[in-house]
Amino acid sequence: MKGNCLIAQSGGPTAVINSSACGIIQTALKAREIERVFAAHNGILGVLHEELFDLGREKPETIDGLKTSPAAALGSCRYKIKKEEDFQQILRIFKKYNIRYFFYIGGNDSMDTADKINRLAAKENYNFVAIGVPKTIDNDLALTDHAPGYGSVIKYLATMVMEAGRDTEALYTSDTVNIIEAMGRNTGWIAAGTALARRNEEDAPHIILLPEVPFDEKKFIRRVNYFLEKNKRCVIVVSEGTKWPDGSYIAEQKGNFAKDAFGHTQLGGAGFFIKNLVEQEVNVKARFAIPSTIQRTGIHFASLTDSEEAYRTGKRAVELALTGISGKMITLVRKSDNPYSCETGTAALADVANGEKLFPREWISEDGFFVTENFLNYARPLIQGEVQLLIKDGLPEFIRFEKHFVKAKTE
Amino acid sequence: MKGNCLIAQSGGPTAVINSSACGIIQTALKAREIERVFAAHNGILGVLHEELFDLGREKPETIDGLKTSPAAALGSCRYKIKKEEDFQQILRIFKKYNIRYFFYIGGNDSMDTADKINRLAAKENYNFVAIGVPKTIDNDLALTDHAPGYGSVIKYLATMVMEAGRDTEALYTSDTVNIIEAMGRNTGWIAAGTALARRNEEDAPHIILLPEVPFDEKKFIRRVNYFLEKNKRCVIVVSEGTKWPDGSYIAEQKGNFAKDAFGHTQLGGAGFFIKNLVEQEVNVKARFAIPSTIQRTGIHFASLTDSEEAYRTGKRAVELALTGISGKMITLVRKSDNPYSCETGTAALADVANGEKLFPREWISEDGFFVTENFLNYARPLIQGEVQLLIKDGLPEFIRFEKHFVKAKTE
Repeated sequence: MKGNCLIAQSGGPTAVINSSACGIIQTALKAREIERVFAAHNGILGVLHEELFDLGREKPETIDGLKTSPAAALGSCRYKIKKEEDFQQILRIFKKYNIRYFFYIGGNDSMDTADKINRLAAKENYNFVAIGVPKTIDNDLALTDHAPGYGSVIKYLATMVMEAGRDTEALYTSDTVNIIEAMGRNTGWIAAGTALARRNEEDAPHIILLPEVPFDEKKFIRRVNYFLEKNKRCVIVVSEGTKWPDGSYIAEQKGNFAKDAFGHTQLGGAGFFIKNLVEQEVNVKARFAIPSTIQRTGIHFASLTDSEEAYRTGKRAVELALTGISGKMITLVRKSDNPYSCETGTAALADVANGEKLFPREWISEDGFFVTENFLNYARPLIQGEVQLLIKDGLPEFIRFEKHFVKAKTE
Repeated sequence: MKGNCLIAQSGGPTAVINSSACGIIQTALKAREIERVFAAHNGILGVLHEELFDLGREKPETIDGLKTSPAAALGSCRYKIKKEEDFQQILRIFKKYNIRYFFYIGGNDSMDTADKINRLAAKENYNFVAIGVPKTIDNDLALTDHAPGYGSVIKYLATMVMEAGRDTEALYTSDTVNIIEAMGRNTGWIAAGTALARRNEEDAPHIILLPEVPFDEKKFIRRVNYFLEKNKRCVIVVSEGTKWPDGSYIAEQKGNFAKDAFGHTQLGGAGFFIKNLVEQEVNVKARFAIPSTIQRTGIHFASLTDSEEAYRTGKRAVELALTGISGKMITLVRKSDNPYSCETGTAALADVANGEKLFPREWISEDGFFVTENFLNYARPLIQGEVQLLIKDGLPEFIRFEKHFVKAKTE
């Protein structure tokens, strides 16, 4: 099927989402069936606003530089499409630009959007292929062994925990407890990944608080005291999504901006809450760090394995699309832990959209404050190797598209 | 003068304080005049508690691994010696272990301590040499062009700002303002260093708030709005020490742990304060990150220039001590910006102890929200090159001393 293709990125950026885009773009630019390769500026908003730019006019070295540039170079958004008119408008734009291939890099909300567009196109007999490319630091996407973005966030955050852990080890006579808040609204995948930093008894983190384990204040304080006695210090990783037994977050933000466009509660106070709790209940000085978005875009210490897998899922998406198959997301299928081997597969967009991969209960240690060896065996292959950056004057160099818009903005 | 030497690390850890220790240890172990090389466990506390360990019994590869291990491997402390008995006790321990050479790696409080011990030894006719080795991420040490630790913290923090800046650039339709809190209680050296990330108009950071510039809320909001109009987003670096015109911090912590052992107010809320201010006054969603101690121990992206200078100051300290000169701190003396050239010099411990290197007013831009090109020319050479780590299973490998204590603890 001859026609143009459109690539969009959605949701929270990652260190390697641009690698996925690179895999799509480089493969699409070589495909005879694909005439022009467009980008939607800022995800689906770019389609709704008719803000498309021509990736064929970008320099090849800019496109290659995607592999070493973090965040979403096409622009991203958190816009949740609800109205039927919006879907109609999207399909109108697709027809107008003769877009026959749509590649959407994102999480389950994005797979839901791609699925709905795909169904609408089918209903209207518009010959069209929609393929999803997985992306999420949260690693909660269903039907894929893991999602590109996850390996890099845990590699970097585990490194932060190692380094901050050595800080506390050096200065425990003053700063005795150190708390690092990990992202992860619903699942503890990210917080759990920092367990890789703990190679032996002395190493941080000593305690990991997961959303999957209802927070038990008294048990937690006992655990902190245990490590203070044993190691004279305690480094705690707390997931931002850690909850009380009643299901409410230990640190919900109140006020105007407490919820985002999807109605998700915005968090950011779990670390501060735990710090105050420790200072009051254990009576030692505690510090806390909130790496926030820094953790998810750390290309300077990203996982090469993750980056390469991100690229492969993008490349595979185009190859699959060219066979005419639609309505699928590319998945990663693990064949073996050690030696690590992973292939690509597919899943129906609707199944991914409606699923969620919870952190397995059996990978949580019995006391609820750490993870098991089986989880570490799962996570370890995902952080291997380092992306090599271009460095200029001591700092990384990232690309930026020239963005040749194919039509004036309609805003 | 034949005798033993003692090395101690003090205050907040850095990415390269262990490089300074490495320079001292490797040089001291080769010096004929120095019989045994001891470490004080946890800075001056280790002397007071008679917790000294024998660095001559550590493996050479452990000692060499100091160059790629962050924080203070000898242990550090924030203990402020005030009592005359403490100084007497320290000198007693020095005599007991025949310590004739004392190397103290730290900031101005440490130089003050080293100076007082040195004077007491002279008064008691104890033949003794005390040399200070500069260390501070804050870069506020007097009489040295810059302090080891500073180059690495700004290289890493500027990289974080670049990466988080790309996150905001990708997602400005949702997360429009991003605030990163930099360390620096009294001076804006660290926050200022993130300006290196801004290579052109589009790049983060757009605004830097320094303790040297009294916070003007209205002017600040106008500046945020200016960037929102121009770039549709705004990335702000706020120094934790940013103050109101009356001199109070914009975000002081209250309660039990509001002050540390030195009576310094503990901060950590400036980023949160600015986030709330922006959300209320500008009415856009803002995010904030508090890298806290993570920023100062980032060996995985530390400056090679910084690390090598740290080593050199340590090595030079021993060389100077062997000539019998006492009561000095090794300084870094810049000869040229471009090409960068820097030599070591000396300053009297007392002069460093009583001095403070403020961020120069003339390096702050006229509007008070950025820095000048002259500052960038000063800072740029300090972040060149990257320390190459040992990586094992995807994460850095750091050394830990075996710590063969030369006497049982007296606690």
